[in-house]
Amino acid sequence: MSLRLTILGCHSATPRSLAHTSSQFLELNNDCFLIDCGEGTQRQLRKYKVKFSKIKHVFISHLHGDHFFGLIGLISTFNLLNRDKELHVYGPKGIKEIIQLQLKLSNSWVEYPLYFHELHATESELILDNEKVEVYTIPLKHRIYTNGFLFREKKQERKLNMRTINHHPDIEICDYQNLKNGKNFKKEDGSVIQNKELTLDPPKPLSYAYCSDTAYSETIIPLIEQVDLLYHESTFLEEHLELAKKTKHSTALEAGRIASKANVKRLLLGHYSSRYKNLEVFLKEANQVFAHTELAEAGKQIYIDTYS
Amino acid sequence: MSLRLTILGCHSATPRSLAHTSSQFLELNNDCFLIDCGEGTQRQLRKYKVKFSKIKHVFISHLHGDHFFGLIGLISTFNLLNRDKELHVYGPKGIKEIIQLQLKLSNSWVEYPLYFHELHATESELILDNEKVEVYTIPLKHRIYTNGFLFREKKQERKLNMRTINHHPDIEICDYQNLKNGKNFKKEDGSVIQNKELTLDPPKPLSYAYCSDTAYSETIIPLIEQVDLLYHESTFLEEHLELAKKTKHSTALEAGRIASKANVKRLLLGHYSSRYKNLEVFLKEANQVFAHTELAEAGKQIYIDTYS
Repeated sequence: MSLRLTILGCHSATPRSLAHTSSQFLELNNDCFLIDCGEGTQRQLRKYKVKFSKIKHVFISHLHGDHFFGLIGLISTFNLLNRDKELHVYGPKGIKEIIQLQLKLSNSWVEYPLYFHELHATESELILDNEKVEVYTIPLKHRIYTNGFLFREKKQERKLNMRTINHHPDIEICDYQNLKNGKNFKKEDGSVIQNKELTLDPPKPLSYAYCSDTAYSETIIPLIEQVDLLYHESTFLEEHLELAKKTKHSTALEAGRIASKANVKRLLLGHYSSRYKNLEVFLKEANQVFAHTELAEAGKQIYIDTYS
Repeated sequence: MSLRLTILGCHSATPRSLAHTSSQFLELNNDCFLIDCGEGTQRQLRKYKVKFSKIKHVFISHLHGDHFFGLIGLISTFNLLNRDKELHVYGPKGIKEIIQLQLKLSNSWVEYPLYFHELHATESELILDNEKVEVYTIPLKHRIYTNGFLFREKKQERKLNMRTINHHPDIEICDYQNLKNGKNFKKEDGSVIQNKELTLDPPKPLSYAYCSDTAYSETIIPLIEQVDLLYHESTFLEEHLELAKKTKHSTALEAGRIASKANVKRLLLGHYSSRYKNLEVFLKEANQVFAHTELAEAGKQIYIDTYS
């Protein structure tokens, strides 16, 4: 059970010399996800040594260019590299048409299985559910249809406590799965050994919530409560609160408030407007209401495991 | 009369850490043109200090991603920077639909005048004609519909030779324009002064031909004859001639042959396949048939004026 997040880009609006637009690579329980894909993401993936073949699922929050203009290039590059694994793209309705039109006009259909999962629901929904991870949408409030994404490791089975099990010779290997599933053990004489004497709690599942772009919205709190890590956009500072409201973005203070109210463990800020040269002020502002705050920056990795 | 070409990217297929896909910025007779626009071009423009507002015309050779995936980002960035000047985009039929679909789905129409000039002719045509420059298409042979572009400075008026004019007090200022236009001067006594005695040749107009991507094609020779600078793709070396033929690209030797047969002044090679680590071999191969050859590389500038 581990979570590793690599920031590929975390600035808003336009790519600049030292400012890469939104993209993140998430490894959760050994499953890999790309979240948003601004222009130049494929170059950032190479820079930070992310193997392209690891990416099986791409999640696009919304169709503003700084979150998806790099997707067509990545999809094309996968083809040039002779990818044969499936690729799943989750994003707002329309994303399939954009990609397919470009592939059609360049006469270069991809030769690997490419699946689009177009989103249009306005309530949170489960969009990926495999053995290890569940992914839910987090409906956000922005100028166009936008989703954040909640990644949750699945709860694991209980762990066998061999120290105590070995004291009970009547427990056989064929009983182990029941114990892992939480059942008590019933002896032949009818007496019962409580499951908690024979097993240990599994590692606590980890969770990550990506919320960008969005105005301040308390409706997301029940969805992201107590996550291990929250990325919440902070395009502006409080001094530009009116601009944040007008453009449906958040301030660093608002991001801190959401983190505090949702009682998350750690907050990561990003999607900075280019008007601010010194990013430390974002940290200072969010820290007023939430202490465990960090600044995203390209190349930064955050690693969390259940024992940390 | 001057030509300055800045290479922004000159590698084929996919952007990599040290390999930028096709894009060039051309300044000709003080008019500015962007030629092709691979992913990340806007970042390269910033890196090499090209002012975005200088770009009024963008020419896209064909709809393979390494030549146009950066266009939507550039168009969007111009809007975010509050551009108000016109932008003209010349490229294959379909380019308008690609750009407009993305603008529509991101709910972000540009607020400056954006004009598309979609190309579909298979013969060379004049596509831009202003006071200073003419631009013609160069139909190329590639896997999809592709044009190169020929940029020609317009011939200037003849220059007044004030040394000789001042010896003829009957020539007045109102006669100057006729002299610039090449007319002889007729004196009141009916005698004639030849124009060439009163004027000097204007600077020779400069010309640049961009030919990428293309298989070896001698049909382009009449169009590019004697240009001051030819950029001709050389994706492969002769050792991969069969692959070049199959994918409708050229080898460095073939690029050299075209340059030689068209009697151009200088040849610039580019669009290298990623299989070659050492680019000097391209130069060596083309040099076998054409001496005045150079290698394109990102950041390289070529400056030519009529006195050089």
